[in-house]
Amino acid sequence: MKLRELGEFAFLSALRARVAQRVDSAVPGGPRVLLGLGDDCAAVSFSGSVLLTTDALIEEVHFRRSWTSLRTLGHKAFAVNASDIAAMGGIPTFALLSLGLPAEFSVEELDEFFDGFVAEASLCGAVLVGGNLSAAPCLMISVTLLGRVPYGMITRGGVHVGEELYVTGTLGDAALGLRLLQREERNEPAVERFLRPSARVQTGQLLAKRKLVGGMIDVSDGLLQDLGHLCAESRVGAVIEGHCLPLSKAYTALAAEQNWQVNVKQIWELALSGGEDYELLFSTPVGRARSLQRVARESGCPITRIGRVVEEDRGIVVVDEAGQPCAIKGKGYDHFSP
Amino acid sequence: MKLRELGEFAFLSALRARVAQRVDSAVPGGPRVLLGLGDDCAAVSFSGSVLLTTDALIEEVHFRRSWTSLRTLGHKAFAVNASDIAAMGGIPTFALLSLGLPAEFSVEELDEFFDGFVAEASLCGAVLVGGNLSAAPCLMISVTLLGRVPYGMITRGGVHVGEELYVTGTLGDAALGLRLLQREERNEPAVERFLRPSARVQTGQLLAKRKLVGGMIDVSDGLLQDLGHLCAESRVGAVIEGHCLPLSKAYTALAAEQNWQVNVKQIWELALSGGEDYELLFSTPVGRARSLQRVARESGCPITRIGRVVEEDRGIVVVDEAGQPCAIKGKGYDHFSP
Repeated sequence: MKLRELGEFAFLSALRARVAQRVDSAVPGGPRVLLGLGDDCAAVSFSGSVLLTTDALIEEVHFRRSWTSLRTLGHKAFAVNASDIAAMGGIPTFALLSLGLPAEFSVEELDEFFDGFVAEASLCGAVLVGGNLSAAPCLMISVTLLGRVPYGMITRGGVHVGEELYVTGTLGDAALGLRLLQREERNEPAVERFLRPSARVQTGQLLAKRKLVGGMIDVSDGLLQDLGHLCAESRVGAVIEGHCLPLSKAYTALAAEQNWQVNVKQIWELALSGGEDYELLFSTPVGRARSLQRVARESGCPITRIGRVVEEDRGIVVVDEAGQPCAIKGKGYDHFSP
Repeated sequence: MKLRELGEFAFLSALRARVAQRVDSAVPGGPRVLLGLGDDCAAVSFSGSVLLTTDALIEEVHFRRSWTSLRTLGHKAFAVNASDIAAMGGIPTFALLSLGLPAEFSVEELDEFFDGFVAEASLCGAVLVGGNLSAAPCLMISVTLLGRVPYGMITRGGVHVGEELYVTGTLGDAALGLRLLQREERNEPAVERFLRPSARVQTGQLLAKRKLVGGMIDVSDGLLQDLGHLCAESRVGAVIEGHCLPLSKAYTALAAEQNWQVNVKQIWELALSGGEDYELLFSTPVGRARSLQRVARESGCPITRIGRVVEEDRGIVVVDEAGQPCAIKGKGYDHFSP
């Protein structure tokens, strides 16, 4: 059924009945929902620090409808926001969803989207408490997410010279997946990473709880771009060891296939500047490698040392195995790059 | 300068310098900004009930660029959200702004938009703490607003049979303004009401503080539509006295000009079902007329009795001066009306 056959308010009423049951699922003793969907505002009870973030997915800018199911898109819309909460050492609690929908959008598609969104939110114990539906020329998804900070807030400004730089998971897969989709090719693991990223909420939590982190950021616009933000806020420089970058099997296999090995540095480029990894990049004082590996095991997510923090005036440099600086094309994603 | 010549991050950096000074302007003793623009998340300190709302303005759906300055659009983007906070008896505190921008958007336009948005926010003591910029096929503005509730939360569910119904300001002007804009005509007061609505934050506050309200809603989709939501949540019916509807001079003058007077009920139609009034509709126990007029004087906003609350099974009826029910065309705005 088309949404315009059902009407905005009938849909909202049905949605409300479906998500109502989730209102009580928030963490016991933590923030509570006082008023969910269905009034002028939602209301929640909160005490202490509240994290706030907002991120959007826009058709033909961030995705094409032919690439993804609506359920997967709902998952991603939550995950890209949860990644920002994870990067502060936080836990997502409450979500608001503002949707712009083309007139021909169907109720079934919208249900599918909400299912993906709410399922992913539930995994973190987060609750959809409010939102807005509007007509729009294309599908536009804007999410606002609130989070709590049980173990203290981690910022971009806490990195110190002498610390080591680590990253979760693997880099470059999502950018590779996007390139393949754009060429109408498929490589399942890489495409999956682009379409269905994981927010590293559990890993971020363990890092925060065990006080292992100086400063942290999520890698959403490419490692070098986001490392630049991290270093700027902390007034430090960084040396990245290209040969240490964590690359997935899918990534290296594809690189071999495409003969990127001709130039060893070329294989690093997507890992250094491709966007949408949604991994955590953070600094840690020297000598915490074993504690970090424990976090990696417990959260089921690899953590890899990729370099070290140096003085600000040394800037950001990528070196090869011999310690020689490498010139790298591309600095990451900027929606309005100059 | 085009945004794509400056780049996303250079713009954000400049914006941050401009809004940074506002971080400390929040209400003393109330919620505080811990971390403003420039990290993965914003962070605020909050204790107690937090109101949450989100609303969007989308080019060619909610506005045309040729109708409005960017500054006025910034004002409206804040006001339509503040109206939802006002309707709960709340005060806006923190805003997040998610913008989708066409590639040709200029830095000057964006600055102008932010100026309008931040100026309007400042009037309520609210602070812009976070946001997101993205490329988009058209201008898309999605705002999330948090609010505090100093005198207890007012919901849609608190209306009781026997109470009287009141509305702030005048009705139908914005819908009239929109019609005029669509026909490329101008009637300044009506057009101004559409382009630059006022959120009734101060009036809502006084009503809440003096415990004058049963249930309340903001009139954004037309009086009858929003009255329907209010009645549904409170399980009551309503009788609206058409001849009591508050109409502006501009509205009645234009109605006379267009010869709407031929049919006396026709003059009520836009006031009953036109959208975007952003007035407050609320119920009050009988006998509070003088207290309400004091609120009206103090907040500089008229408050008018428009009807009464009846049993649910009587539904919603509009009557004329003789008490006879009138048939009214149109039930208000639904983005996806069936």
